[in-house]
Amino acid sequence: MSKHNFDEEAIKKHLELKGKIVVEPKARVLTDEDLSIYYTPGVGAVSRALAKDPSRAKELTIKSDMVAVVSDGSAVLGLGNVGPEAAMPVMEGKAMLLKQLAGINAFPICLDTQDTEEIIMTIKNIAPVFAGINLEDIAAPKCFEIETRLHDELNIPVIHDDQHATAIAVMAGLINALKVVGKDKADCKTVIIGSGAAGIGVAKLLHKWGMGDIIMIDSKGIVSSTREALDPSKQALLAITNKLDLSGGIQDALKGSDIVLGLSQANLLTSDDIKLMNKDSIVFAMANPTPEINPEDAIAGGAKVVATGRSDYPNQINNVLVFPGMFKGAIETSTNFVTDEIKLKAAESLAAIVDDPTQDNIIPGVFDAGVVDAIVQAFKG
Amino acid sequence: MSKHNFDEEAIKKHLELKGKIVVEPKARVLTDEDLSIYYTPGVGAVSRALAKDPSRAKELTIKSDMVAVVSDGSAVLGLGNVGPEAAMPVMEGKAMLLKQLAGINAFPICLDTQDTEEIIMTIKNIAPVFAGINLEDIAAPKCFEIETRLHDELNIPVIHDDQHATAIAVMAGLINALKVVGKDKADCKTVIIGSGAAGIGVAKLLHKWGMGDIIMIDSKGIVSSTREALDPSKQALLAITNKLDLSGGIQDALKGSDIVLGLSQANLLTSDDIKLMNKDSIVFAMANPTPEINPEDAIAGGAKVVATGRSDYPNQINNVLVFPGMFKGAIETSTNFVTDEIKLKAAESLAAIVDDPTQDNIIPGVFDAGVVDAIVQAFKG
Repeated sequence: MSKHNFDEEAIKKHLELKGKIVVEPKARVLTDEDLSIYYTPGVGAVSRALAKDPSRAKELTIKSDMVAVVSDGSAVLGLGNVGPEAAMPVMEGKAMLLKQLAGINAFPICLDTQDTEEIIMTIKNIAPVFAGINLEDIAAPKCFEIETRLHDELNIPVIHDDQHATAIAVMAGLINALKVVGKDKADCKTVIIGSGAAGIGVAKLLHKWGMGDIIMIDSKGIVSSTREALDPSKQALLAITNKLDLSGGIQDALKGSDIVLGLSQANLLTSDDIKLMNKDSIVFAMANPTPEINPEDAIAGGAKVVATGRSDYPNQINNVLVFPGMFKGAIETSTNFVTDEIKLKAAESLAAIVDDPTQDNIIPGVFDAGVVDAIVQAFKG
Repeated sequence: MSKHNFDEEAIKKHLELKGKIVVEPKARVLTDEDLSIYYTPGVGAVSRALAKDPSRAKELTIKSDMVAVVSDGSAVLGLGNVGPEAAMPVMEGKAMLLKQLAGINAFPICLDTQDTEEIIMTIKNIAPVFAGINLEDIAAPKCFEIETRLHDELNIPVIHDDQHATAIAVMAGLINALKVVGKDKADCKTVIIGSGAAGIGVAKLLHKWGMGDIIMIDSKGIVSSTREALDPSKQALLAITNKLDLSGGIQDALKGSDIVLGLSQANLLTSDDIKLMNKDSIVFAMANPTPEINPEDAIAGGAKVVATGRSDYPNQINNVLVFPGMFKGAIETSTNFVTDEIKLKAAESLAAIVDDPTQDNIIPGVFDAGVVDAIVQAFKG
């Protein structure tokens, strides 16, 4: 199958729109009386009420549901460290989707710093405005420290989408893919290519779920005890992955594996690589915008179920299935971070929307009924 | 005249709305094809274009016209240092009005810090998102350093409304008030109560315009050379105000004055104070939400023209007359700061909208045709 290239159309539409979101008043201010209520003098009474009790911001201001979608541009899509301006179209897109799919207001904040302490300080400084913080496309390992510190220092949901939403979507896809190929999760060997925020988040959740051996790969090869100078986030992976302490490259890992999950960059895999895997293999090639391997090539290599992160192939495993409901659920239930329990339940509920999984239908579509609610309900226990 | 109290209604409406602005998508994302254009994979092409040339953010993202309305909550209305949450209803109100009156998108940012360096760093860090920065309700003297530093360190309009927009509105009102009382600006003695950002901004512009002697008053009395420990922003005032180096309090200053401009706090003046002024005095009592003196009392004291900052009295001198056009003009002309030339021209144009000034009609209404355009045109030279 040959796919449409959306590049030209996307540039054209973005030039036409000059940004994909607008800010609109919730009420019209057309008369002096309106002005007296929404601006001066009436607004003074609201300010005084908030000076007395700042916690009322949740009922009197946009802190009721406004999410900041925050990126430093250090790990944008599969493009890498492209900076804050290049992150903007993605963050604006997320703000569009949060509103349209879950009715949650969101505003993009792209930061002109990649320093961990400055990022933390900046987010804390702007936090009075927001009901929640969606950390996004921030490189590992600093993303882990930023999320953990903000959990300690802020009292609103702070969720790094790439770790948590991606993990939920991948697990949901695997639940149904395993049904299609007729394998049991505990018996499967899984290779995760990409050990950034998303790869690590997926590994942790799949381990918790009870997946068999998981092999992590980063730009230097298999993450094993023989590797030097592993950062703490990768060190921690050794306890839950690579039981046989394999070392080597992608091909070494793929031999005899059942599942490969690509969360890295474009065109890393070939049909020959997929041929190294066991029969009826599962290939999720989720790098955006260009996957690690084209679905056609994966199938030619023997894959039985193939998924990508794109909207224009079947089986879109993308965090857009999860993040709108995730922020709706977190805000509605005042849940400041996403526990494993919530993630497992969300993945099961998302997978259950597909009645009868097939090769080309392992995951609901982004616009399918029940997708947002499946995630929201996971927060409600 | 007895005035309606809007407090209860304002609280009720704010509780109903839970914040006065929403973020909306500019385009609907309803199909997989939409998703492919506005999100992945199409957005990747836009990100790559911006990685190559970040300056294209102005044509491809909300940086085209999105203004940040930034406050640290240190000088909110006439309420003082009430903190970031209490500043929110005002900043949201400004965002509403920027959109509704000038078609400019704006988003409130209220900061959980009052440290000058942290404020500067935070604004610089979030600047990639914005076409302009509206500094608002930040206490003097730090507001001056923040504005000056950001002019040096950012390449977008950075405008502290309280200084510049207020000065333009006050001068516009005085142009017409002086016509009503038949006095010449050069002969008038003006007392400015309040030597914060707004008071200082007004003094500087009136001096530039050619007003006669101006006496500044702060919480300790008349700003004179005999005062100890004046901060640098007040020291600088000595060169352009208080020619006779008077000292003392409000009453000492008011004796024999023609104009009093209140930019301080509620209920500072009485009818007896106004009686100290020359015949046909002009009283602008602009503290919000409660003026320095009720218009009724000012008139009882002999004032001929009275203005307030409120929407529910005649003659509303409020920066809402100016800031929508100011940001529209600054963004359209890429003007990073408001020069004296722009301010003088804007004030003249705003005053000229009133055909035949009378006691109760010295300034156009906020919703009058031509108000926004008068300010925009001043930027176009």
